[in-house]
Amino acid sequence: MGLSSPNSKSVISAKKNAIGVLQQMLGERLAVGESIRQHHCHSTTMIEPQMPDAVAFPNNTQDVSEIVKVCARYQLPVIGFGTGTSLEGHVNAPLGGVSVDFSHMNQVLEVNSDDLDCVVQPGITRKALNEHLRDTGLFFAIDPGADASLGGMAATRASGTNAVRYGTMRENVLALQAVMADGRVISTGQRARKSSAGYDLTRLLVGSEGTLGLITELTLRLHGIPEAISSASCCFDDIRDACQSVIDTIQFGVPVARIELLDELTVKAVNAYSGLTLPEKTLLLLEFHGSSAYVAEQADRCGTICADCGGSEFEWSANPQDRNRLWQARHDAYWATLRLRPGAMCLTTDVCVPISFLADCVTQAQEKARSFGITAPIVGHAGDGNFHMLLLIDGDNMSERKKAGTFVTWLAELAIKMGGTCTGEHGVGQGKINYLAKEMEGSVDWMSRVKQAFDPLNIMNPGKIFSVDAAGNANEAIQLAH
Amino acid sequence: MGLSSPNSKSVISAKKNAIGVLQQMLGERLAVGESIRQHHCHSTTMIEPQMPDAVAFPNNTQDVSEIVKVCARYQLPVIGFGTGTSLEGHVNAPLGGVSVDFSHMNQVLEVNSDDLDCVVQPGITRKALNEHLRDTGLFFAIDPGADASLGGMAATRASGTNAVRYGTMRENVLALQAVMADGRVISTGQRARKSSAGYDLTRLLVGSEGTLGLITELTLRLHGIPEAISSASCCFDDIRDACQSVIDTIQFGVPVARIELLDELTVKAVNAYSGLTLPEKTLLLLEFHGSSAYVAEQADRCGTICADCGGSEFEWSANPQDRNRLWQARHDAYWATLRLRPGAMCLTTDVCVPISFLADCVTQAQEKARSFGITAPIVGHAGDGNFHMLLLIDGDNMSERKKAGTFVTWLAELAIKMGGTCTGEHGVGQGKINYLAKEMEGSVDWMSRVKQAFDPLNIMNPGKIFSVDAAGNANEAIQLAH
Repeated sequence: MGLSSPNSKSVISAKKNAIGVLQQMLGERLAVGESIRQHHCHSTTMIEPQMPDAVAFPNNTQDVSEIVKVCARYQLPVIGFGTGTSLEGHVNAPLGGVSVDFSHMNQVLEVNSDDLDCVVQPGITRKALNEHLRDTGLFFAIDPGADASLGGMAATRASGTNAVRYGTMRENVLALQAVMADGRVISTGQRARKSSAGYDLTRLLVGSEGTLGLITELTLRLHGIPEAISSASCCFDDIRDACQSVIDTIQFGVPVARIELLDELTVKAVNAYSGLTLPEKTLLLLEFHGSSAYVAEQADRCGTICADCGGSEFEWSANPQDRNRLWQARHDAYWATLRLRPGAMCLTTDVCVPISFLADCVTQAQEKARSFGITAPIVGHAGDGNFHMLLLIDGDNMSERKKAGTFVTWLAELAIKMGGTCTGEHGVGQGKINYLAKEMEGSVDWMSRVKQAFDPLNIMNPGKIFSVDAAGNANEAIQLAH
Repeated sequence: MGLSSPNSKSVISAKKNAIGVLQQMLGERLAVGESIRQHHCHSTTMIEPQMPDAVAFPNNTQDVSEIVKVCARYQLPVIGFGTGTSLEGHVNAPLGGVSVDFSHMNQVLEVNSDDLDCVVQPGITRKALNEHLRDTGLFFAIDPGADASLGGMAATRASGTNAVRYGTMRENVLALQAVMADGRVISTGQRARKSSAGYDLTRLLVGSEGTLGLITELTLRLHGIPEAISSASCCFDDIRDACQSVIDTIQFGVPVARIELLDELTVKAVNAYSGLTLPEKTLLLLEFHGSSAYVAEQADRCGTICADCGGSEFEWSANPQDRNRLWQARHDAYWATLRLRPGAMCLTTDVCVPISFLADCVTQAQEKARSFGITAPIVGHAGDGNFHMLLLIDGDNMSERKKAGTFVTWLAELAIKMGGTCTGEHGVGQGKINYLAKEMEGSVDWMSRVKQAFDPLNIMNPGKIFSVDAAGNANEAIQLAH
């Protein structure tokens, strides 16, 4: 039997042996207690937690390499763990195995100010990195909301509110060091800004969700902290007008750093949660980076565009306090919307469509949610055409759970039909495996060829991106080995 | 024997059969005449041309798919051909085979103005695309100098003078359609701006040089034509000061659209070629895009930075005629430098280093070239740390050729030691296979795993990126099949 039957006798004994070897190697840095294992598959989503058999805490790349070698020898799954903030079950261990927790590997190894790059270990979080960079005049731009680890952000190809200006992890990782499925360590590139040297293994690992290798070092692109930052907000009676403002802003070449959309329901929730008095309409929040003169010019242009599109109450400010107040609404959105239905679980969608379809997609989604009787406020990275519906569900009510599932499938299929994707920034994990197949059709076969070529034993985060059984030859190889 | 012995009896007869089948299928759109076959492996480089056995002219993706299916059946190599402007022997056919010329597939299929994207066939050139886009207010930003085809530019991960602002083909291809080695057609993504949906097959194919599949459609990112464009130039006595100006400009966050470096020798050549009277010193040429006010601000800042670094004669202008005159020097550089040694061949290097190493790399390269007695003017995309040395060599003089080879190896190794790459934008092709192995070490093994998984018969552009014999298992598979 293969790993797909995690409770067979031979597998259990192989696991025991593997964990014994790892314990000898790592001592106290291998934990097998239930609470720590539970912590490593905990999530805020509706996906059921699935515990690993052990949690390893490597101190360096060499440790990671040795751990993976042992796991390969005993065919034990290896699951990377950063801060556990992923939303699609990425840290779950459906076949058991070893969760590799990178919290001890959280150092900044180099800051190259002249080159606007740095080299970090995967366990550092984005806030800790920016804290470290504070005195250099540089910052790392990607902000997915959660204070995620850089390794996890790269593994899921994360982005967030300012991707419209600075790109996603895809554009901001220059090179990686990774431990592959046989324990070998590779470097995928150099520090040069661009390269045509062979296949782009960096971009292949970014977004591979730990299924091809474990990231042990990242070379990241940095940006200069802008001389001036200003923020603006604008209200719209019709969400279509807000979306048109976004299109015109992008098309006009205004390099907005952030352009976020909150629907009426979210604004209501935020007002109640934070004691604000924002007009309870669709709200656009914008941020501009540049010189003082240039942020003023950008704000002025956006004001004109929004007014032309029917927006009202356009306000902007370069004052940090005003800015923080304006963005409070956005930062509070998640917790505020949970209060709309106390005790509810939140199921978050992540579709991303070409921006010309954003208004259609959002309004159809709102109507559908109403017709389903689901409370589902919306926050969106409108400049990218990416938005999240926060479905507030009674987790104990099977009928509601089923309805939510139907809704999520319907929305993913709508986005795909519009030339979009089921996931703009959260990744596939366990939650979106079926949608991936619908979206990418024949391409999934070529993805699984890469998977089989890199990880023939299917030990690297099995059951993510592809279903547990979908590894095909990989599983056959495992069966032969037992 | 396998494809690696292209003249064995069985291979010759398989080729004959394959070409017969293709002729029946394509009629006059399969050419076997010597002059057309010669044209399809011609290059301006020192790499020896190697003719394909036939040249196919597909009209659509279906044709490409059928061609590849026939080639797979008879194990005949397939080599993509755009405009033949590559510099590393990409279009050569070391094992013979079919050159697939995309010149009939040169249409713009969609322009989505609201989304700033378009869908094109691979045979369209960048100038033709921008001509098509002229009335939309949009443009495609990547400019590698040559009027290359978009398919070829994607295949080699090309960039050019304005990558410092707009990125390379990596950042500007949203999705691809491709015909894989078994003739199946895949789409690697949707039109959404960002996605976390599985492995990044788009970025895997971009830069794969036709060794994994043939690109048959590209979804490209467009930009709004800037409201204002201005140019500037500045002279430097010391090339180090010019490089420091580049570093400071980037670090200060001035979003220069172009920042090009010409060494003294190139300026001399350009003056002679175009009757200009530029001061014969190191020259920086800059271009700024934005609103009128903003380009003025950018020029002003750069002027200050350059002056602080010891630059002189900083001039800028928003007048198109002045701009064209300034950029004439850059555009003429290649042809002008050839005149420095009439009758010489030009061997172009392509190293790219972190910009903090640019001054060191350039000055060491200049000294080395002088010590070797090689005339080697320099033009550089300084903002990316990428520069080309144009080695002017008597192609008939074996000692000069050998010296040039030694120099190129030395420079590639120097760049790699500095954290850079042997190729910033030209690709590996046949010319840089040995340097790739030095630069990427263990990673080349993982690249070849992808190659073997995608193209087990090694029919897709064999002998590029990897040596003809390096396909390992792939060649074994071929041997078994014969």
